[in-house]
Amino acid sequence: MDHIVIIGFESAGITAASAARTTNRDVKITAVERQPYAIYHPCAIPSAIEGTIKDMGDLIEPAPKMPNVEVRTSTEATGINPDDQTVELKTDGGTEELEYDSLIISTGSNAIKPPITGRDLDGVHVLKTIEDGQAIINEIGKAENAVVVGGGCIGIEAAAALNERGLNVSIVEMLPSLLPGLLDSDMVKTVGERLEDMGIKVYRGTRVEEILGDDRVKSVSIGEEELPAELVILAVGVEPEVELAKNAGIEIGETGGIKTDQHTCTSIDEIYAAGDCAESFSPITNQPILSQFATTAIRMGKVAGTNAAGGSASYLGSLNTAVTWAYGLEIAATGVTTKAAEEAGFQPVSARTRVSSKPHYYPGAKPITTKITVEPEQHKIIGGQIIGTEGASERANLLALAIQKETTIEELAKSDYCYSPPINDCIGPLVVTAETLIRKLR
Amino acid sequence: MDHIVIIGFESAGITAASAARTTNRDVKITAVERQPYAIYHPCAIPSAIEGTIKDMGDLIEPAPKMPNVEVRTSTEATGINPDDQTVELKTDGGTEELEYDSLIISTGSNAIKPPITGRDLDGVHVLKTIEDGQAIINEIGKAENAVVVGGGCIGIEAAAALNERGLNVSIVEMLPSLLPGLLDSDMVKTVGERLEDMGIKVYRGTRVEEILGDDRVKSVSIGEEELPAELVILAVGVEPEVELAKNAGIEIGETGGIKTDQHTCTSIDEIYAAGDCAESFSPITNQPILSQFATTAIRMGKVAGTNAAGGSASYLGSLNTAVTWAYGLEIAATGVTTKAAEEAGFQPVSARTRVSSKPHYYPGAKPITTKITVEPEQHKIIGGQIIGTEGASERANLLALAIQKETTIEELAKSDYCYSPPINDCIGPLVVTAETLIRKLR
Repeated sequence: MDHIVIIGFESAGITAASAARTTNRDVKITAVERQPYAIYHPCAIPSAIEGTIKDMGDLIEPAPKMPNVEVRTSTEATGINPDDQTVELKTDGGTEELEYDSLIISTGSNAIKPPITGRDLDGVHVLKTIEDGQAIINEIGKAENAVVVGGGCIGIEAAAALNERGLNVSIVEMLPSLLPGLLDSDMVKTVGERLEDMGIKVYRGTRVEEILGDDRVKSVSIGEEELPAELVILAVGVEPEVELAKNAGIEIGETGGIKTDQHTCTSIDEIYAAGDCAESFSPITNQPILSQFATTAIRMGKVAGTNAAGGSASYLGSLNTAVTWAYGLEIAATGVTTKAAEEAGFQPVSARTRVSSKPHYYPGAKPITTKITVEPEQHKIIGGQIIGTEGASERANLLALAIQKETTIEELAKSDYCYSPPINDCIGPLVVTAETLIRKLR
Repeated sequence: MDHIVIIGFESAGITAASAARTTNRDVKITAVERQPYAIYHPCAIPSAIEGTIKDMGDLIEPAPKMPNVEVRTSTEATGINPDDQTVELKTDGGTEELEYDSLIISTGSNAIKPPITGRDLDGVHVLKTIEDGQAIINEIGKAENAVVVGGGCIGIEAAAALNERGLNVSIVEMLPSLLPGLLDSDMVKTVGERLEDMGIKVYRGTRVEEILGDDRVKSVSIGEEELPAELVILAVGVEPEVELAKNAGIEIGETGGIKTDQHTCTSIDEIYAAGDCAESFSPITNQPILSQFATTAIRMGKVAGTNAAGGSASYLGSLNTAVTWAYGLEIAATGVTTKAAEEAGFQPVSARTRVSSKPHYYPGAKPITTKITVEPEQHKIIGGQIIGTEGASERANLLALAIQKETTIEELAKSDYCYSPPINDCIGPLVVTAETLIRKLR
């Protein structure tokens, strides 16, 4: 083991480098990144649009110094040759060949640009890179109306951000409810109501027919209605960047991501994949999934880096634990939604409660809505969804650990916890929901 | 099973009644409570002293209506006769005998009034009941200086509350550090510093020699120094109220609480005990402990009520998960401290980290300090301590579940979690601490 090459140096790549470094102090590591900067924080771009983060430059960082790790930015990998274990590079100066003993593919993903007429008009943007974010910010002053196509996390965060900047904003979601991969339809109601209360128009089950305008976008047609828009954000998701892998003969999974086993190995020896470009699996359904979150990239990258450097690590799978926000609401979830559970053949049983975050007599108590889902045989927790003004994310993390450790709802109801009136109530939302679910299961 | 009698109707008693009701719809339940009100919230009294809760009356509630549950307030149980299964009562009207099939003792605890000369002077208070709290509030306007004896949760909360009300406050703690049962000395530093920054004088390893004054307290002597004080709060802890149980021949454990087994049964058949009056056990050390928290009372009460009503429940033990607060700091812990672990024969290994609660580039990021402790063989988590401005309590709860489910530090490091820059960082404090601890264990 002399040389590890990492293609793509974002969350997965950098964590892989760090884990490889920890595993094997002697191996040389080269990371190539086609962007001119090493690290950026895409998840914070909505905060920059909103104005909370003042300078988009704050979201770009130099690569952390790690001994014997060379990070080559503005360097694109153009080919992988598994037979002679080389990677072809296109650099500013020309082309180059790099030999590897282990290769980690962490090429990430690209924003999907859906095939809608008018998608190339000026004023129509996807939202993934720093450049996308900056382009949107540059147009805020010029636009009065914005349409966000897609009501997932990024879509909602972007819509709320633009609304906070004074624009009239509409969200157009093709599916019948917002945040479809994250929340059940009964849970997402609160979110939709909050967005609408704040003045965002939400169109559900609505398809964008056409984006209209001459050079610049003027409106978005959704069939019956035409929504004025000088700014359009296409936030319909990301697709794994797998061209390099596919061309090298590496197997692509049914989800469109690079197929990996539990060691993050691809179909070709000594080639690993991690992050948005890689297919992961759900430990609940045991089915392959795409889990395109920074946290998944970090968790997979750690495994890939360890194994690429000669260590031994296995990946526990992805629970898609995620949190998003809008107007002070924290919206968090982990595990499978009811729909996903049913599709996987479970007969899930859920309970939903709405309690006060603090004791009812305490000033500033706010509601927190919690839903927990179990499978009906052993009552193991398989999903959790929480919406509140604070503490939703940490409660989702607790439920993620509960799923990982195959915790039953009865065990959760018996769990120890802390209480102090200024902070929380003497029986918290997770225990209340667990008790409710247990009664339902009787 | 015809009749369950519950003595004491606070956290343990009310939860026991509710669990018994759920377990057996037909059994008649009588709860007797010597106080004139059914429910009050002692943990919120410091918030009332502080002024956040305006009216102490807000902390008193009527008993919740449960079918076939009679709650008799202002009624004191004066004796238990296990042979003929009766309880003697003293009521407003005289005495009375109540037959039981199952009995639950949830008599709670009393504030310890340490044997210090001057403890009966006017202006010297313990802090446990609504009446204690009201008496302290009544004196706030008349006092300039206050001394709080005891630097545990209640002591610190009371001291901060009085300080917020404009008094000069000193805390005198006998042991070398504050919050001795909750935090290791390295962790508690932050708390001491915050108190001192806010103007509270903290005396550690200091014994109160005497409380001085004629009728009213004037000062507190701590040896070399004499601290002026028109108000003194004795917050040195509570002791289980076990007189009734002891007189009935029920075994008292080595901790001074009523001895219970894992079904919360006492040494006498059909008599259960739960809450502050009962001895519990640590599932980490398997040793008997007193765990005098409302949450323990609730968790034990649930077991006692279920079993008393003919159901079957077992208690998982107490992790002493607790949270306290001062000046916007949340201070939370679960499991054993390093000292307690060592005393129990472990050779604990810990890691402590201080990271930012949000990404460093995000406005409003605040530090959060985390310590996790494991046993060295299997690396199972046995303790956690967290101090931060938000999210400490929920993280402690997560670690409590981790302990309950015998989670190793390696499993915690691999756990799934959520991330969004306005809420948290892409690698949170628990994972950072877990990684640090894993490196230490190598």
